[in-house]
Amino acid sequence: MTADLSPAPLFAAPSPDHHEQEEGAVLRPRFDAAGLVTAVVTDHASGELLMVAHMNDRALAETLSTGVAHYWSRSRNTLWKKGETSGALQNVREVRVDCDQDAVWLKVAVAKPNDTCHTGRTTCFYRVVADDGQNLTVRDTAGHPANS
Amino acid sequence: MTADLSPAPLFAAPSPDHHEQEEGAVLRPRFDAAGLVTAVVTDHASGELLMVAHMNDRALAETLSTGVAHYWSRSRNTLWKKGETSGALQNVREVRVDCDQDAVWLKVAVAKPNDTCHTGRTTCFYRVVADDGQNLTVRDTAGHPANS
Repeated sequence: MTADLSPAPLFAAPSPDHHEQEEGAVLRPRFDAAGLVTAVVTDHASGELLMVAHMNDRALAETLSTGVAHYWSRSRNTLWKKGETSGALQNVREVRVDCDQDAVWLKVAVAKPNDTCHTGRTTCFYRVVADDGQNLTVRDTAGHPANS
Repeated sequence: MTADLSPAPLFAAPSPDHHEQEEGAVLRPRFDAAGLVTAVVTDHASGELLMVAHMNDRALAETLSTGVAHYWSRSRNTLWKKGETSGALQNVREVRVDCDQDAVWLKVAVAKPNDTCHTGRTTCFYRVVADDGQNLTVRDTAGHPANS
C-alpha cells in the first residue's frame, strides 16, 4: 500500500457531461489551467459592477464557508481576504455560477465602499472608453478626460 | 534595411507607470499571457449580469469599431461575433475599463435576450450556490434544485 498524500479535493470535479455541468444540482467549479475561476463582484443593493478578480479552490471554499469574499492574488500569488488591510471587507449575500461553471458572480455588501478599488474609489470600473475619431481614450464617468 | 513584418499593434501598450495605467487618458488594455482581457457583460437597462467572456486585441477592436460585441472563443480558438448564429447580437452602449485595464465592462442591448446563454436563457448566471449543510448545491433563482 502507498499513502495517498494528495489532499481531498474541495469541490466536485467538472462533469464531462455538458447537461450535468449546465443543469445539474451539484456545484462543479471548472478551474482553468492555472487553477482559477473568474469572479465578478457587484454591489448587492445598487447592482453596480465593483471589480473582477480570480479565485482558486481555497478562495472559493473560504468565501462560501465564511461569507466573506476571498480571492487569489495573481500578482502576489497568495490567498487574499479582500479588505483585510483596507477595511473594505465584502460580505457575500449571494453567489451564482455560470452555465459551464468557470465563472462566479458575487453579490456583496461592502463594509467600506470608498476603498473597494485600491485607487480609492467605490468601483474599479471608473473609466469609460471613448473614441474621439483619432484616438481611443478613457474618460471619467462624467465624460471628462482622465487625469494623466 | 529589413522589412518589419509584424502588424501594427491595435492598441497602446500597457504603461509600466502605475499612475499612467490607472489614471491616464489613453486606453492601454493589458492583455494576459494568452493575449486576452476579461469581458463582463451586463444589460444596459436592467443592469443584470449576462455573461463573462474573453477578448483578444482583434475582438476588442472590432467591438469598439462596430458597436457590436465580439469575443475570443477559447474553446473554438476563433473570433466570435456573439449572436451571429443565434441572433442574440449585443449592441454596445458603453464600454468601461478597470483600474489596471485587464478587464472591460460592456453594457449592452441584446437583440434576442432569450438566446443570450446557449442553454436558452437570458443570462448565463441562472443558478445560485447553496449549502444544505452537507453539500454545496446549485439551485435555480427561485431556490428550487436544478434539474439534473
